[in-house]
Amino acid sequence: MISLLYPNNIKKNDCSNINYANRGMKLEGLIDEANLYYQENDIAVIYKKPTPIAISKVDYVNNNKVLSKGYFKCKSTLDYVGLYKGRYVDFDAKSTINKTSFPLSNIHKHQLKHIENILRHGGISFLLLEINNLFYLLKGEDLISFINDNTRKSIPYTYIQENCFEIKLKYNPLLDYLKIVKEIYIGGNYEKESK
Amino acid sequence: MISLLYPNNIKKNDCSNINYANRGMKLEGLIDEANLYYQENDIAVIYKKPTPIAISKVDYVNNNKVLSKGYFKCKSTLDYVGLYKGRYVDFDAKSTINKTSFPLSNIHKHQLKHIENILRHGGISFLLLEINNLFYLLKGEDLISFINDNTRKSIPYTYIQENCFEIKLKYNPLLDYLKIVKEIYIGGNYEKESK
Repeated sequence: MISLLYPNNIKKNDCSNINYANRGMKLEGLIDEANLYYQENDIAVIYKKPTPIAISKVDYVNNNKVLSKGYFKCKSTLDYVGLYKGRYVDFDAKSTINKTSFPLSNIHKHQLKHIENILRHGGISFLLLEINNLFYLLKGEDLISFINDNTRKSIPYTYIQENCFEIKLKYNPLLDYLKIVKEIYIGGNYEKESK
Repeated sequence: MISLLYPNNIKKNDCSNINYANRGMKLEGLIDEANLYYQENDIAVIYKKPTPIAISKVDYVNNNKVLSKGYFKCKSTLDYVGLYKGRYVDFDAKSTINKTSFPLSNIHKHQLKHIENILRHGGISFLLLEINNLFYLLKGEDLISFINDNTRKSIPYTYIQENCFEIKLKYNPLLDYLKIVKEIYIGGNYEKESK
């Protein structure tokens, strides 16, 4: 698996206007656990993209190349990419501490453009949202439609409850988001569970 | 596009046993040019994965986070990933200065494992080879078969000429590798041009 190793004191998302770092890591931990499960059980190949870094200085220590100065760059794509049942899957994890709505400031313009590109070329793209300690899959198509049809700066929680797919925590893996992906995109009818 | 920015004096591939860096950059430059062309003409979404870096020290300069110590890690996957006509595409660029064979030491074990995983889950995976100033697409399936059927430590050039798909340089883009990918994997008959 390729990913950056973060010391505990480093916040990951330097690009966001709002600091969701701690919340984000919780959701990311669940996704990492699921991806490891999918990999070990040969269900899918999904991994986190490394954060791009602009390298400005490199030294050699005992013949090993050591990066001694670099800058974190904003990702122009989403955090996770992979392959599931022959389909290209590209998605991101977003958390909010808001209770009544999901702020769109949490999604960058170049990420929206990337989602549009993926959908146009036949890929699967979505967001995994964490709000009110619940987890939802928001289809890329629905996100784009919402933004095109609304002038709001956030997605109301009622919209999420009605239009997104809730992923209930279970065991092995805890956040089995590919089960929902299969039902939505690949085959099988997804019956929304009664609330 | 996400990728590392390298100062001119930094060799990219620290993990390889053999230094193909200068040759590799030439082929990589052609692939980058092609990917930009594909992106600008809305043909495909293909990008280079950033090199993973283990971060061990971060400072703050004028409120900006600056990486002040990090180590380059070997990639466990391939260099390029993307989406073309609804298909997941995952490949790597490999160059050799050898004239009679392509050394397999240039391909890491975890990369082979990754290719096997991609093929098993219905993705497209291949290598773009540069040898004798010519460019070839070697299908992942053929690479795996060759390694399983042979004890050789290199692929003879005669094998490459007979079993790989030559990509002739042209204009816009220079290395139009997706044309061959389309013909091999997606539809259309690829006629090997007479040598």
